[in-house]
Amino acid sequence: MKAVVYQEPHKVEVTEVEDPRIEAPNDVIVRITSTAICGSDLHMYEGRTGAEPGTVFGHENMGTIVEVGNGVVSLTEGDRVVMPFNVACGFCKNCLAGKTGFCLTVNPGFAGGAYGYVSMGPYRGGQAEYLRVPFADFNCLRLPPGDEHENDFAMLADIFPTGYHGTELAQVSPGESVVVMGAGPVGLMAAYSALLRGAATVYSVDRVPHRLRLAEQIGAVPINYSEGDPVAQIVEHNQGQGVDKGVDAVGYQATVAEGEEQPAVVLNTLAEVVRPTGQIGVVGLYVTNDPGAPNEEAKRGNLLLAMGRIFEKGLRMGTGQANVKAYNRQLRDMIIAGRARPSFVVSKELPLSEAPEAYAKFDAREEGYSKVVLKPGMS
Amino acid sequence: MKAVVYQEPHKVEVTEVEDPRIEAPNDVIVRITSTAICGSDLHMYEGRTGAEPGTVFGHENMGTIVEVGNGVVSLTEGDRVVMPFNVACGFCKNCLAGKTGFCLTVNPGFAGGAYGYVSMGPYRGGQAEYLRVPFADFNCLRLPPGDEHENDFAMLADIFPTGYHGTELAQVSPGESVVVMGAGPVGLMAAYSALLRGAATVYSVDRVPHRLRLAEQIGAVPINYSEGDPVAQIVEHNQGQGVDKGVDAVGYQATVAEGEEQPAVVLNTLAEVVRPTGQIGVVGLYVTNDPGAPNEEAKRGNLLLAMGRIFEKGLRMGTGQANVKAYNRQLRDMIIAGRARPSFVVSKELPLSEAPEAYAKFDAREEGYSKVVLKPGMS
Amino acid sequence: MKAVVYQEPHKVEVTEVEDPRIEAPNDVIVRITSTAICGSDLHMYEGRTGAEPGTVFGHENMGTIVEVGNGVVSLTEGDRVVMPFNVACGFCKNCLAGKTGFCLTVNPGFAGGAYGYVSMGPYRGGQAEYLRVPFADFNCLRLPPGDEHENDFAMLADIFPTGYHGTELAQVSPGESVVVMGAGPVGLMAAYSALLRGAATVYSVDRVPHRLRLAEQIGAVPINYSEGDPVAQIVEHNQGQGVDKGVDAVGYQATVAEGEEQPAVVLNTLAEVVRPTGQIGVVGLYVTNDPGAPNEEAKRGNLLLAMGRIFEKGLRMGTGQANVKAYNRQLRDMIIAGRARPSFVVSKELPLSEAPEAYAKFDAREEGYSKVVLKPGMS
Amino acid sequence: MKAVVYQEPHKVEVTEVEDPRIEAPNDVIVRITSTAICGSDLHMYEGRTGAEPGTVFGHENMGTIVEVGNGVVSLTEGDRVVMPFNVACGFCKNCLAGKTGFCLTVNPGFAGGAYGYVSMGPYRGGQAEYLRVPFADFNCLRLPPGDEHENDFAMLADIFPTGYHGTELAQVSPGESVVVMGAGPVGLMAAYSALLRGAATVYSVDRVPHRLRLAEQIGAVPINYSEGDPVAQIVEHNQGQGVDKGVDAVGYQATVAEGEEQPAVVLNTLAEVVRPTGQIGVVGLYVTNDPGAPNEEAKRGNLLLAMGRIFEKGLRMGTGQANVKAYNRQLRDMIIAGRARPSFVVSKELPLSEAPEAYAKFDAREEGYSKVVLKPGMS
Repeated sequence: MKAVVYQEPHKVEVTEVEDPRIEAPNDVIVRITSTAICGSDLHMYEGRTGAEPGTVFGHENMGTIVEVGNGVVSLTEGDRVVMPFNVACGFCKNCLAGKTGFCLTVNPGFAGGAYGYVSMGPYRGGQAEYLRVPFADFNCLRLPPGDEHENDFAMLADIFPTGYHGTELAQVSPGESVVVMGAGPVGLMAAYSALLRGAATVYSVDRVPHRLRLAEQIGAVPINYSEGDPVAQIVEHNQGQGVDKGVDAVGYQATVAEGEEQPAVVLNTLAEVVRPTGQIGVVGLYVTNDPGAPNEEAKRGNLLLAMGRIFEKGLRMGTGQANVKAYNRQLRDMIIAGRARPSFVVSKELPLSEAPEAYAKFDAREEGYSKVVLKPGMS
Repeated sequence: MKAVVYQEPHKVEVTEVEDPRIEAPNDVIVRITSTAICGSDLHMYEGRTGAEPGTVFGHENMGTIVEVGNGVVSLTEGDRVVMPFNVACGFCKNCLAGKTGFCLTVNPGFAGGAYGYVSMGPYRGGQAEYLRVPFADFNCLRLPPGDEHENDFAMLADIFPTGYHGTELAQVSPGESVVVMGAGPVGLMAAYSALLRGAATVYSVDRVPHRLRLAEQIGAVPINYSEGDPVAQIVEHNQGQGVDKGVDAVGYQATVAEGEEQPAVVLNTLAEVVRPTGQIGVVGLYVTNDPGAPNEEAKRGNLLLAMGRIFEKGLRMGTGQANVKAYNRQLRDMIIAGRARPSFVVSKELPLSEAPEAYAKFDAREEGYSKVVLKPGMS
Repeated sequence: MKAVVYQEPHKVEVTEVEDPRIEAPNDVIVRITSTAICGSDLHMYEGRTGAEPGTVFGHENMGTIVEVGNGVVSLTEGDRVVMPFNVACGFCKNCLAGKTGFCLTVNPGFAGGAYGYVSMGPYRGGQAEYLRVPFADFNCLRLPPGDEHENDFAMLADIFPTGYHGTELAQVSPGESVVVMGAGPVGLMAAYSALLRGAATVYSVDRVPHRLRLAEQIGAVPINYSEGDPVAQIVEHNQGQGVDKGVDAVGYQATVAEGEEQPAVVLNTLAEVVRPTGQIGVVGLYVTNDPGAPNEEAKRGNLLLAMGRIFEKGLRMGTGQANVKAYNRQLRDMIIAGRARPSFVVSKELPLSEAPEAYAKFDAREEGYSKVVLKPGMS
Repeated sequence: MKAVVYQEPHKVEVTEVEDPRIEAPNDVIVRITSTAICGSDLHMYEGRTGAEPGTVFGHENMGTIVEVGNGVVSLTEGDRVVMPFNVACGFCKNCLAGKTGFCLTVNPGFAGGAYGYVSMGPYRGGQAEYLRVPFADFNCLRLPPGDEHENDFAMLADIFPTGYHGTELAQVSPGESVVVMGAGPVGLMAAYSALLRGAATVYSVDRVPHRLRLAEQIGAVPINYSEGDPVAQIVEHNQGQGVDKGVDAVGYQATVAEGEEQPAVVLNTLAEVVRPTGQIGVVGLYVTNDPGAPNEEAKRGNLLLAMGRIFEKGLRMGTGQANVKAYNRQLRDMIIAGRARPSFVVSKELPLSEAPEAYAKFDAREEGYSKVVLKPGMS
């Protein structure tokens, strides 16, 4: 079958790879109908990770089941399904606690697995025609048959639950004011989730105009940090007060207004703008090994955090990749009921063959390539 | 000053009463600008309680502070404020736990106090020109100056937080299906709150067409129980499933389709339509003494509940009057941010002098009198 | 193999039945080392359910794995395991939410399955030499090898988590006062759990002296309801106050001091003795079909509850059988660390062959038979 | 009256100061019976804060009410009371949310007030004969009359609730493994609280033998970090696993085994030893201005935290000084019921006149001075 295969920094190709097959009784094989490119794929694409050439990318996968292992009981050939980017077993201590992003079974020696991602276990990615899904009863979420809401449902694999996770870590509740750092796809999903949960006011902070326009369209207040201190802008709008809650949807490749990378700047901005007793949800990625970091400590993931300020304000902070399984069912039901339309972030649909160009343009932050959904069935 | 005074069953009059005055250092006096008539006022009006002639009615009060006791530190003459219907001290065991509807200080021998309500303590009601507010730092919620959103803010005294409380007791969360029994003002506020909290689908059950129209306008699915078994109607709409959560916004004066009172019918309908592991929030009133009940047990508040079914399904049920203080600030902020407009339930504004007519027509369920806000300053 | 087989009301026999075998890839077969008789087995034994002759009893099972299906990944032959009484799939909507007592997969048409119990699905009981365990990765909890703490671990199948569940439904927290109705094995486990969670004072209500002695030994305050109104006794001991929380560990076969059955008496006692804003956890069984009930409504599970009182006090009530999987790992770890010794309730160990006598004496409430653990390996 | 007055670094004196008096209707005056010296007093004593000469120290205060303002309703002359170290109003946004350590009223321009502490508002300390308590209905916790449990109750002002707060921030629940960094008075209270909440295993990390002995006596596992890497010691004891939860009871003056200060070492040890998905409660103090810090960034409270590791493991962290009012009532009830005896940390009782010597010896970490309770009535 055809698949998007990593070659070297800044180069992926669509090549033939072996078809996946049922390897264990709880597996299914899914024919991919939609598979999105994620900002975190760029970390590998840019060579800022240890990803090996030959890796098949793709962790935002949905499609139709074409083969079912004999241990699977709830799924049938023909079922339309979307898979969390996390691979999880469903029965370990962490999965039982709903922490499916930190499964102790699927990636021995590490807490958490994923499809098509460096260090996340032996699971091939889904930017391909077919995908093997282990522990399928647990990892497949069934969708209504047909092709309605295809791009909405595709967002359930990662970015909609990931944005939502940011608001859950920050325990966003009705009537609160919330700042979301970053208005890329995940940041937009976090802002959208905060509004769906009843936040009174949501600030979206970025410096890319077309992102800020999208944020405004969904009801957030856009804050352009290249036009002045974002803390001051927010406090002024917020009746002179800090905000109740904050979400970091940027991570370690954070930049200041001048464009320079400062890996702790987003966290410290949140420590400043969130009011005493507030909470911060961190879904932007922080890593323990960043060869491209600006200094030796940052290369090991050690960042200068305003700990004195955090303690003085009694802030709480939750971190880590989303436990997609904890949210995807309810978010699916919001889509079915017409109460959520996360596909507003999708900028383009492309056939698998155009993946190399899509990666290059996304990496260059070209408008129109901010969220590409690959369609292996498109020609 | 003038006030709405209870005379006898089915009769209130607007008469002169003594002006309220500062009685303790933590009191303030409020000039009332808006004071709504509540469905629970009708229990007294109809003579189905032990309310004494001479009682000044009114527990949904808002206005402007005109006098401030010398122990009050956060309020000033001229402040625009709305008061929870519950009177609370702020420092007893229950207030500390956020259960301000069950204050142990303000109504000795009972848990909970209120303005202008039988058995709820010595607090005169606010359907009058002025109101004394005890423990004012705790009981007054400040509002933006001016007269914007007057009727929205007036709903913060009782029915918006009470409806919201129903969804809190049922722990309504994003993506869930919810049934709200009753589409009177409180039921509508519960349905509205469920939607604000992100419910996927909300069913509003009633038999009065204009109430069901309002429910539909805010995004709920109207279910007319006079047109067929409401459980069957809901399950059919809900893909053959029971709903995740339920709210009882009716209480003990529940009726069946034929109009007969059956005090347990709403609770047992919820036990039937809520799915296993679901939760029920009960904000409709149940009493320990109902002279008008259909049988001896019901007169003492003992009702035949489907306990076997409730246990078999593992249902959880929360009950009781709202702890308004736990919600009114956040709901106020949603109004200020333009994210909530609870005044959609207000059917009419009237001067204080028209209170007697308003009570009579509300009691007769005349359209247009479902939620009257009295305006003592109106002439 | 040999198994305890139900014959007719008040009669079980130990007979030969077919050995269980792996039926699906996720099954394991367990050689039973300990399997306890439960109070809920008596409902079937006494003929107060629709249990069919031929049913193999036993839902409190532990033992050693002797055969493993090819879909199972976390278990090996020789592993020592204990199984929740609930059979659950691990991936349905309810299992995902931690409500494994209400699994939607294992018992089609009903929420929840169990071993060896009427209406709880096609799962043979474990009062036998061997047991088939479906979805074994999910349903088996691994234990330290060897035979240490055998009876403590055996209590993890049902009554320790069930007692704990009562305290969880009531949200018992440190420093609270708690009443537990019933000091049978489950009631004792509830009282013990409340103390482990840090309750300040726990009242155990029963009328059987040896049960009350056990309650006192673990640190509870014994209340003998045959010696006077239990509400008055508790309030007097509790500085004139109602208690913060209550647990019903009795259920529908509740009796009053004179010995007569009154199915709602325990619930209504709790409604009386729990203070305003309190919470009640109901783990005692209530059923929808009780042929032996004292009246027609009670036969259908409809009970006269003091709903007026419950609402007036703003009580919350959680119900239903325990989701054992939600607690058994943590409770196991307390046993391993020496912080919990639930085996104090075990009154006797017997070989399988003595099950008929054990049932008869347990049913007659003979002292020494209150909690029997059958040992199929004993001769 | 006599009071402990700060003179200059390393010098306090007992001198005459003006008697406190009722300044506002909600004040009371308390005659102090017990007032403890706290580790955080040493920060001021050592000159590592901006505390002014003339400051009366003392925030762990208890005693008897001798005068009552006319706005106070729940207290009477003669009542025995203990006061949280936080001064709070009871009605601001933060107090309403239970965050009484971050009151917005009592210390304008800052969130949070306290008695006798630099920057915490105009509230004189209680290491004196008398103390003025503002908002007394809210700030006084009533105790049983008499003098029983005097030192237990004295611990309710700060260190017992502060230790408990650490376990609450980390959401310690029954059956978990917990590490508490630091076995000084607060660390011991945190370990004790974790055990009271049902933790299976608690590790207490320190290097002072007499502290570790106390930890062991209450049931914790002592870990001496001067004898080897504490992470390795804990993981070895904990079956090769990291622990579920961690509490930082040390703060910014953390030292490594060699005795050198490294302000982030405790936090980073927790990031290492707490397992993925775990939680960390930080009650050890971190400041925004530390003149004695080892580098420029640390002087401003900016510390090098292992953020990559924290994110990778999905850790959550709660911080800040305790909201004493959220816990002191329940902890008091545990003392009254005989279920908690926090006075085990008290090493010595001294008259007020010996405060200067007590400070000097406590500052020198002399054994026997780790927790001194001053008794102004002692001669």
